[in-house]
Amino acid sequence: MADQSSTPLRIGIIVFPGFQALDAFGPLDCLNVLSWTHNLTLSIISTTLSPVSTQIPLSPNALGQSILPTHTFATAPDLDVLLVPGGRGTRASTPAIQDAITYIRTVYPKLQHLITVCTGSGLAARAGILDGRRATTNKMIFDEIAALGPNVNWVPQARWVVDGNIWTSSGVSAGIDVTFAWIEMVFGETVAEKIANGLEYTRHRDANVDPFAKVHGL
Amino acid sequence: MADQSSTPLRIGIIVFPGFQALDAFGPLDCLNVLSWTHNLTLSIISTTLSPVSTQIPLSPNALGQSILPTHTFATAPDLDVLLVPGGRGTRASTPAIQDAITYIRTVYPKLQHLITVCTGSGLAARAGILDGRRATTNKMIFDEIAALGPNVNWVPQARWVVDGNIWTSSGVSAGIDVTFAWIEMVFGETVAEKIANGLEYTRHRDANVDPFAKVHGL
Repeated sequence: MADQSSTPLRIGIIVFPGFQALDAFGPLDCLNVLSWTHNLTLSIISTTLSPVSTQIPLSPNALGQSILPTHTFATAPDLDVLLVPGGRGTRASTPAIQDAITYIRTVYPKLQHLITVCTGSGLAARAGILDGRRATTNKMIFDEIAALGPNVNWVPQARWVVDGNIWTSSGVSAGIDVTFAWIEMVFGETVAEKIANGLEYTRHRDANVDPFAKVHGL
Repeated sequence: MADQSSTPLRIGIIVFPGFQALDAFGPLDCLNVLSWTHNLTLSIISTTLSPVSTQIPLSPNALGQSILPTHTFATAPDLDVLLVPGGRGTRASTPAIQDAITYIRTVYPKLQHLITVCTGSGLAARAGILDGRRATTNKMIFDEIAALGPNVNWVPQARWVVDGNIWTSSGVSAGIDVTFAWIEMVFGETVAEKIANGLEYTRHRDANVDPFAKVHGL
């Protein structure tokens, strides 16, 4: 456990054009509140330090918000935990996506934990680090993402899946649940519960209960 | 209903140092997805165009993320809908908070709807526009926020409250539920349900059912 007096737990998150806002800011808000009592650092990592928008690439009518990276893939410090959000941008072949996949492949061996949200598991699959593992992803486009990792044991019905030190979640909001499950494992149930109550968030507590698999015909 | 061929619905959101990330990005992610099929504009409004961080003011150990405003309070266009997030920053007396309160008071008469999340209702209360109305807020610090609006009829047990054209929600995650309720009212249940299923979000559907009032002793 990392409280305010201990060595910080070093967290990073990858962002790229067209990342899904809630994929990132659900988990990040949990971590923001955790940082009020526990010692964490956060690196927001992209190809350059220019603002990165959630707007879908090549969709000028879509809304988006721009956030500022703190590091590039080249300057990012060593990390303990890497968060990988998804979003429509993962389906583009932008330099940022290619860079993200290379970065995931390179840093994974040094991480304590990797957490992916939604189609972020597609990036991890393309990086090759899910081969031979159980993993899940967004349920609306499950087959499309599963095809990116033919050697992955994709789980169609799961709010999230833990295999070794890789935590993959189902679509968008499931990122909040996998983050709370991870906080509970690392910092304890009391800490996770206090944050969830502060955020007035009703957690999905069972990784195997997944109402949206059925909604999306899986 | 504003589909892609119609006049856009003009949405704005206020941001200030120490806004709560999920208060803003929960509702915004719903609106981002809505914008894939419906014609919306979004203005992100603050005192200046400089990046605005979710980091709590004067708390250097707290994590935060910086987003870019698109307009200042002086340059913001006319709006149909204004979103007001909360967060620890609402409890500071920064210029941004004073400016936000003045802005809410000034633009409210021209809005179709005002939506507040969490302690954002404290800013609306301080602007005087909740006087004589029913409203709710964050349940962990309910009494502290209620004291900001002695002439408001504060509702301790509600996931969200609608009074006239003002929609106030309970803490943080409740902002997602009030946004879906608002989308359902304006764009119809099918649209709201499709977005919630895409975000794999389990909605709180009853405004009067509020598990966190009890959690926080109300």
